[in-house]
Amino acid sequence: MEVATKALSFAGAKEGEEFEYKHCLIGGAAIDATGKPLPDETLETAKASDAVLLAAIGGYKWDTLPSAQRPERGLLAIRAGLNAFANLRPAIVPRQLADSSPLKRELVEGVDILIVRELVGGIYFGQPRGFGTNEKGERIGYNTDVYSEPEVERIARVAFEAARKRGKRLCSVEKSNVLEVSQLWKEVVIRVGKDYPDVELSHMYIDNAAMQLLRNPKYFDVIVTGNIFGDILSDEASMLAGSLGLLPSASISGSGPGIYEPVHGSAPDIAGKDVANPLAMVLSAAMMCRYDLAIPKVADRLEAAVNAVLDAGLRTGDIYKEGQAGTRLVKCSEMGAELMKHL
Amino acid sequence: MEVATKALSFAGAKEGEEFEYKHCLIGGAAIDATGKPLPDETLETAKASDAVLLAAIGGYKWDTLPSAQRPERGLLAIRAGLNAFANLRPAIVPRQLADSSPLKRELVEGVDILIVRELVGGIYFGQPRGFGTNEKGERIGYNTDVYSEPEVERIARVAFEAARKRGKRLCSVEKSNVLEVSQLWKEVVIRVGKDYPDVELSHMYIDNAAMQLLRNPKYFDVIVTGNIFGDILSDEASMLAGSLGLLPSASISGSGPGIYEPVHGSAPDIAGKDVANPLAMVLSAAMMCRYDLAIPKVADRLEAAVNAVLDAGLRTGDIYKEGQAGTRLVKCSEMGAELMKHL
Ligand SMILES: CC(C)[C@H](C(=O)O)[C@@H](O)C(=O)O
Ligand SMILES: CC(C)[C@H](C(=O)O)[C@@H](O)C(=O)O
Repeated sequence: MEVATKALSFAGAKEGEEFEYKHCLIGGAAIDATGKPLPDETLETAKASDAVLLAAIGGYKWDTLPSAQRPERGLLAIRAGLNAFANLRPAIVPRQLADSSPLKRELVEGVDILIVRELVGGIYFGQPRGFGTNEKGERIGYNTDVYSEPEVERIARVAFEAARKRGKRLCSVEKSNVLEVSQLWKEVVIRVGKDYPDVELSHMYIDNAAMQLLRNPKYFDVIVTGNIFGDILSDEASMLAGSLGLLPSASISGSGPGIYEPVHGSAPDIAGKDVANPLAMVLSAAMMCRYDLAIPKVADRLEAAVNAVLDAGLRTGDIYKEGQAGTRLVKCSEMGAELMKHL
Repeated sequence: MEVATKALSFAGAKEGEEFEYKHCLIGGAAIDATGKPLPDETLETAKASDAVLLAAIGGYKWDTLPSAQRPERGLLAIRAGLNAFANLRPAIVPRQLADSSPLKRELVEGVDILIVRELVGGIYFGQPRGFGTNEKGERIGYNTDVYSEPEVERIARVAFEAARKRGKRLCSVEKSNVLEVSQLWKEVVIRVGKDYPDVELSHMYIDNAAMQLLRNPKYFDVIVTGNIFGDILSDEASMLAGSLGLLPSASISGSGPGIYEPVHGSAPDIAGKDVANPLAMVLSAAMMCRYDLAIPKVADRLEAAVNAVLDAGLRTGDIYKEGQAGTRLVKCSEMGAELMKHL
């Protein structure tokens, strides 16, 4: 976060833009300070802001708390609280890193997928949910996966609009051969698609999509899917790039402020060692400039600087591979300093 | 199926075993003949058999039927009808094919994962389900993801027993940071694990598992997970081998007959062209001999013959890669004929 805000302010200044930061607590740090994973003050401040830049939220320390008090709850609550229903997760394989992928280079080179995940509905929030007993008197745990027509329609529109600005191909992923919630999803997506005759719409079952992402990732342009399937597919897709360290995400509501955060988590195993990759956070700030703040020139500057440090061969541990000519292992702080030079 | 039953009879004869086959309809063929995806006669015959060898069930022709009458319903109904709750899906990368994988050879060589998927519960069968309206009067589609303690316990036992006979490591996959159904799952798995102190138990969120399968597939020995997560993970894992054409599966109940079927579907695009890979079906027959029929020597013969044809360089289209020395593209019938020679 420190690298990202510094880079953001500097890139902004070059374009005559100034940022005012309010630092708020969420997740583990908020639990320690206030007992709550999302203090009211944080949500109120977020609502009153133009956009939210979010770092990661968990750690071993809070892993044993009862689930209602865990860091993750703060994340879910701020998404819901800001109605940030559209989670945009690009899965791009930067040409400098095509060799870091577990997949063969020829399969991933040039991959550029945008996953549009519904973020405030589905099984993450569906009611009823909880624990109980069934008719045999056995204890059960249960959740409800549910979507309404307007919920599907608004996320479908975001996805079609995004596809229109890119490769004009949209793949809707569900499990309509088994689930009614997916049948409704598919029906609504098809209906919305009538308004976008220029976008080629296809449909894929989630199991097949998990397979095709590996078999032929270049098939995909934009993917639209529900909350849990999007959670799974976007993490799988992130591996095409070989590392989470470069992947930003945007969660937007269309009206209020959006949430911009790296796809990676808090990585408690390396916390405080100055070895994390700051670039996903920087690229999240760039997405924020592009979407909510509508200052694309600042985004361009940030993205160009990220490209430049990668071109210069700088690699944090997560993307470093021994023996690759022209690359050099650096710490988080050094990556940040070099980034500032390029900015 | 023709190749598999021929090979089975022949391998059986060598060991003094004879098979009596009853051919029944299910899926698309059953819909055409009887209007139902699982005719009563099929289920009755299956129940009265020692085991069920099942080919694939769908095709374009039936894709536009209302969902309650589609081929998939027959598959779900026979699984439930036989209470085949434990779906075992090996994801093995045969050394002859390590180069066909989309993943780099060094990552997949030697991978040997067994996915144990709960098959007759979870969101596939949970009630209530259907369509309705919410309190705002909007149309909704919904499903219930639910597990009871005994359901989790029995699948956990199958998985621990399997792990005990293999690498002694079991990874339970769920989404307990968000879902109550997963919290119950995890709690029960931990409890059952007390009976298996020799098996190392770990827990992973589904999104992370989808990632780790690519990052470090050799980490996994046995995976146990619910119905929908197992559907997704097993298809993803099948890609480690580069093709579905070699992957068998077993769905067992512990008491009645199990269901043995290839992981691949009906592939309507190549039906009738004599180009399908028969080996997954043959390996499914081998699993049947090993589990339900308890004639492991017949299984050994079938598996050795499959190994031999692969060693001899025979490749159907799905596993053929141009320019690989010592390999030859063959049709389904030729693969079958060579297999018989090796048997
Ligand atoms: C931490 C967790 C609740 C979260 C999710 O499942 O949405 C994370 O996996 C993500 O994808 O942002
Ligand atoms: C065809 C479909 C209903 C089935 C499933 O989802 O279980 C298939 O994908 C499988 O994995 O066997």
